[in-house]
Amino acid sequence: MLHAVILAGGSGTRFWPASTRARPKQLLSIAPGSNETLIAAAVRRIAPLCAPERILVATGAHLVEATRRELPGLPPGAFLGEPVPRNTAPCIAWAASLLARRDPEATVMVLPSDHHVGDEPAFLAALKIAVRSAERAITTIGITPTSAETGYGYIESGEEFADGVQSVVRFVEKPDKTRAEEYLAGGRHYWNSGMFFFRAAALLDAVRRHLPELHAGLERIERAAERGPDAERSETELVFPSLPSISIDYGIMERESPLHVVRASFGWSDLGSWQSAWELAPKDASGNAADPNALLVDARGNLVRDLRSGEKSRPIAVLGVNDLCVIETEDATLVVPRDRAQDVRMLVEALERRHKL
Amino acid sequence: MLHAVILAGGSGTRFWPASTRARPKQLLSIAPGSNETLIAAAVRRIAPLCAPERILVATGAHLVEATRRELPGLPPGAFLGEPVPRNTAPCIAWAASLLARRDPEATVMVLPSDHHVGDEPAFLAALKIAVRSAERAITTIGITPTSAETGYGYIESGEEFADGVQSVVRFVEKPDKTRAEEYLAGGRHYWNSGMFFFRAAALLDAVRRHLPELHAGLERIERAAERGPDAERSETELVFPSLPSISIDYGIMERESPLHVVRASFGWSDLGSWQSAWELAPKDASGNAADPNALLVDARGNLVRDLRSGEKSRPIAVLGVNDLCVIETEDATLVVPRDRAQDVRMLVEALERRHKL
Repeated sequence: MLHAVILAGGSGTRFWPASTRARPKQLLSIAPGSNETLIAAAVRRIAPLCAPERILVATGAHLVEATRRELPGLPPGAFLGEPVPRNTAPCIAWAASLLARRDPEATVMVLPSDHHVGDEPAFLAALKIAVRSAERAITTIGITPTSAETGYGYIESGEEFADGVQSVVRFVEKPDKTRAEEYLAGGRHYWNSGMFFFRAAALLDAVRRHLPELHAGLERIERAAERGPDAERSETELVFPSLPSISIDYGIMERESPLHVVRASFGWSDLGSWQSAWELAPKDASGNAADPNALLVDARGNLVRDLRSGEKSRPIAVLGVNDLCVIETEDATLVVPRDRAQDVRMLVEALERRHKL
Repeated sequence: MLHAVILAGGSGTRFWPASTRARPKQLLSIAPGSNETLIAAAVRRIAPLCAPERILVATGAHLVEATRRELPGLPPGAFLGEPVPRNTAPCIAWAASLLARRDPEATVMVLPSDHHVGDEPAFLAALKIAVRSAERAITTIGITPTSAETGYGYIESGEEFADGVQSVVRFVEKPDKTRAEEYLAGGRHYWNSGMFFFRAAALLDAVRRHLPELHAGLERIERAAERGPDAERSETELVFPSLPSISIDYGIMERESPLHVVRASFGWSDLGSWQSAWELAPKDASGNAADPNALLVDARGNLVRDLRSGEKSRPIAVLGVNDLCVIETEDATLVVPRDRAQDVRMLVEALERRHKL
């Protein structure tokens, strides 16, 4: 059977002040023209492929309650709370191990909770191909690049089998501009979408080979589970902090072979910063993406958002500035040029230092 | 006896959103490091020269109550509310006419309520010289320019009598940059401070000669006053809308001769925009004038002010921007480059158009 694991961790720094540690990006509705939170969209999108009973949402223990509130259609058992964050490899392997116990024949798709998908039919079509491909090898989805993006990891593709399914030659870290332009021109590199498809048993086998410490930890949890759910829970809390903190990309994908990549285009964005929120948003003739209540004079290319809920109408007025993000929430006001939006974490770090003093 | 008339009208557009029509600049504490409103400072500064009973504060009828609250030390009769705004000539002539009735020998100093004075002893010394000079001719104070300012009117000075008192050759409108630089280099031009000193009788005589319509209107009010304060009030309300709307500079000063100008330097600024608030404010090593609660990273030359009262601490975070004003009030948030600060009125006008729709 096909199962889905939605990754819903996140430190909440990239969309500060809208996102915070207690309310990371996936719990916000950043997508243009929609009040749907990103995670609700992520779950809704896969409904044609996967019944709610076969969806797991993996998040931090402190986020389980807030996440559950956004997903009233999922059963209470759908939520996995990681005791401590240990990056994606332990989380995905843990979920795969749970699913393998429930369904030894489980095929799993691992999907992010905080990305944007512009073309949902194309997205579903790609998922179906990837799920089929997962019967033969661990599979990922590679997005056909539309620009020389330096903010994404890339996948170099090789031999084509069928249906846009190719072998993976290697995973590549975020490139510099020159290399990104080569990738774009060459046509063999795809953006790494962070989506993974595998038989649970195959993934666990790869974990055993590449991350034996992690595999051993999961086996301890499995043995505890035989003594009942309380034992499983306390063993998980004991084991998790000892697991290696490593990403699935680095820990498994860069070491595993063969891997398949499904080439796709479905208006994808990882919504990495306010810059991508601006890119996706509907804009006026001057390139401004602004709330109706905002007031812009002699201003071009700005993102202006008042995200305070339930307060009286109170305009953000912007005069004579270009390519700026002006974001207001109940917690703070942010002013940053769009091309510095990825540095917003510097402000979060500065605030955290201030609060520690 | 010496009397003071403090001009406290103002449309409240230059320091929007801090200033509004209902709360113009003089009712704010814009001066650096002080909670004193500008008008309270204006009245306090002249205390050594003028008892509270001899101070009149001229403002719009709708501002009398708010103005009174800022000046608890003045008697209730100190407040003149203009029924409609008619620029400075009618207002000053009206005040002079009232004072001439109370004290035929009245000498009057007319002072703005919304300017900054850095050096108060030098200011008082200049006032004393100007008051003495007013016995001979209508007198103004000219500020020795410290830069080629294009935002001020200038006074061209002539023959020097004594004590830094010179004749006025002419009043000059705001110059372009080239001309302002000539004025600065030439040494004969001073900034027009908007301060005027005269015997009430002399001013009324000048009004009779240069603005006979205004003079006739004042005489109607005076005749009504003989029938008691109610008649005076209703006649004032009837007459005021018919008076010519004209500034004292244009209506009297540019036409009158002789005029004297007292040359002075006392750290004066007309506080014409957020730019001048930044200029006067204490700044950090990066040239930022910011609230202690603000968070600035990679930012230079900014003015960052949270002027919301009684709300929870909520930082304004600014990353990677220079020479910007970011101002928050309960009514709005403003983002504008310092060198566009004088255009803030465009936003006020745009908001007013929006509210009319």
